[in-house]
Amino acid sequence: MALPVPHETAITVALDVMGGDHGVDVVVPAALDCLDRHAGHLTLILVGDEPRIRDALAKAGRSDDPALIVRHASQAVTMDESPSQALRLKKDSSMRVAINCVKAGEADACVSAGNTGALMATARYVLKTLPGIDRPAIITTIPSVGGYTRMLDLGANVDCSAEHLFQFAVMGSVLAEALDGMERPRVGLLNIGEEEIKGNDQVKQAARILAASDLNYQGYVEGDDVFRGVVDVVVCDGFVGNVALKSSEGVASIIAHYMREEFHRNVFTRLAGLIALPVLRRLRRRTDPRRYNGASLLGLRGIVVKSHGGADRLAFANAIDTAFLEAREGVPAMIDQRLDTMFSERRDQ
Amino acid sequence: MALPVPHETAITVALDVMGGDHGVDVVVPAALDCLDRHAGHLTLILVGDEPRIRDALAKAGRSDDPALIVRHASQAVTMDESPSQALRLKKDSSMRVAINCVKAGEADACVSAGNTGALMATARYVLKTLPGIDRPAIITTIPSVGGYTRMLDLGANVDCSAEHLFQFAVMGSVLAEALDGMERPRVGLLNIGEEEIKGNDQVKQAARILAASDLNYQGYVEGDDVFRGVVDVVVCDGFVGNVALKSSEGVASIIAHYMREEFHRNVFTRLAGLIALPVLRRLRRRTDPRRYNGASLLGLRGIVVKSHGGADRLAFANAIDTAFLEAREGVPAMIDQRLDTMFSERRDQ
Repeated sequence: MALPVPHETAITVALDVMGGDHGVDVVVPAALDCLDRHAGHLTLILVGDEPRIRDALAKAGRSDDPALIVRHASQAVTMDESPSQALRLKKDSSMRVAINCVKAGEADACVSAGNTGALMATARYVLKTLPGIDRPAIITTIPSVGGYTRMLDLGANVDCSAEHLFQFAVMGSVLAEALDGMERPRVGLLNIGEEEIKGNDQVKQAARILAASDLNYQGYVEGDDVFRGVVDVVVCDGFVGNVALKSSEGVASIIAHYMREEFHRNVFTRLAGLIALPVLRRLRRRTDPRRYNGASLLGLRGIVVKSHGGADRLAFANAIDTAFLEAREGVPAMIDQRLDTMFSERRDQ
Repeated sequence: MALPVPHETAITVALDVMGGDHGVDVVVPAALDCLDRHAGHLTLILVGDEPRIRDALAKAGRSDDPALIVRHASQAVTMDESPSQALRLKKDSSMRVAINCVKAGEADACVSAGNTGALMATARYVLKTLPGIDRPAIITTIPSVGGYTRMLDLGANVDCSAEHLFQFAVMGSVLAEALDGMERPRVGLLNIGEEEIKGNDQVKQAARILAASDLNYQGYVEGDDVFRGVVDVVVCDGFVGNVALKSSEGVASIIAHYMREEFHRNVFTRLAGLIALPVLRRLRRRTDPRRYNGASLLGLRGIVVKSHGGADRLAFANAIDTAFLEAREGVPAMIDQRLDTMFSERRDQ
């Protein structure tokens, strides 16, 4: 299979219509929004229960849209299904068929809001990893002062060797170059602050490999630096990344909760809240997690984007946009090329 | 050395006056605030450069306060000193002498805003761990919906076995019982959400030990649950805990940053900000990290509280309060007793 390469012409993205908490009710409207946004440059393959998809399209008056292809899949992966069950028993799931579209070259990328474990296992089984990549990683964007930071891994790999962390750094760096147009993205390794007890062996060893590489490695960063924008790419193992990301979401919700409580305390605070409403709305928009929806599974021979399971129309459309951009820039081929150069350099040393 | 036991009479706390970013300028005023708050129940030993301490007390008009004892220490541990350097070369540091006061039974507890690594190493060396505790852990309180959660370890131990995580759970549970008056604090083990790939071996094994123990173990929690108040004590290894805590601080500051930006956008938003000021002030007070200052080093044969290095007067006073409460409840003796009961039960099984 040839890796997707950058192109100016139309991109085709396969969507797992049955995945996530809302399935067809969210995926179809989001798909239509994206088609309108990228008219003439995007074709979507809607994979899932064909009658339900056709029904949703008819209701939206888009049954005859030439940029929409419907592909039937007789099964769906549930949110609590184990990766191995999904692999073994759901060979005709909407998730698997969408990934197959990428494998077959019919689609340049696929998007699913389904169960992450099953998506990772199926994508890895069907598409395989790039040469030089042991394990794919999950990367997402996180808002930071002055822009955003990309962080990986976010839960695909709980125990990572130094070499894995290095591979994550390469992949994250290439993604930032491709999608953000950065020349030499600054890469940081997530660690804790105490001297002597600083970091575990894997992190210390990864720091040595990174310092010797031609990546723009900036050294260790701490949890709060992720949001300070001191680097463009933050590298960590999946356990730490997942906890950091979810803790951050937790803090953002508790602050929102406190804010609601304070503005609803009495008639005066309610009035103050009304007056401040336009400001609070802007604030909410800036911290809206839906804007950052769409985590990429990097290191595969193809583009797979994971949407949050509970994503709504706006959020899912952002995940499709991520897939569109990665396909347009040809991210897997870029990673492949970068790894190739790095390995020959390391061989030659 | 006898472990401190609960008492109604006066508590003595030794303060490392030279530690932290501000030393005497913050510690002395904070000490005076605490003395006023606990008049008749608290005696403070101010450890550090005697002339400077006496000078600060004279300026505050408190030279003759009988609840204040000044103890000279000729050295200070710097913030970038390694734990081993501090142990070897700073035998008369204010930090070490404050810990010695606890060891000698002159103080019921000590507080330092100095370098965490040095504090942990010195406390462990001087005080030793309780029987059945391999490694001390750092615990702090984190605001959550409806109250707060206690979380440990926060950075003392980067690689933890299942048994270590279990010991942390016992210590955290006892602390919540002692300080929050809870009967059976709910304990959760921090993990990530994906099935199959859920957790590393240590976490899975710790879950089994916890489920078999008589602690009120509730199962796995995720990063966002820490702030949802679903459990009272969250257990994790020090790397993960440190990253989670610092990421949370990072998110809180970026939200505060966005809020300032939005309210300073133009004359209308500034006006809205003025009107909402009382509400915003209450919000700031609720999320003020100074209110949560004072992390305890648990598992030692004595009470050691770590203040944030950058703590101001209000924050440092909160750390002294934490030490005061732990001493009043006799936390180390409670942990010791609980461990003793648990070990005899495990032996008898």
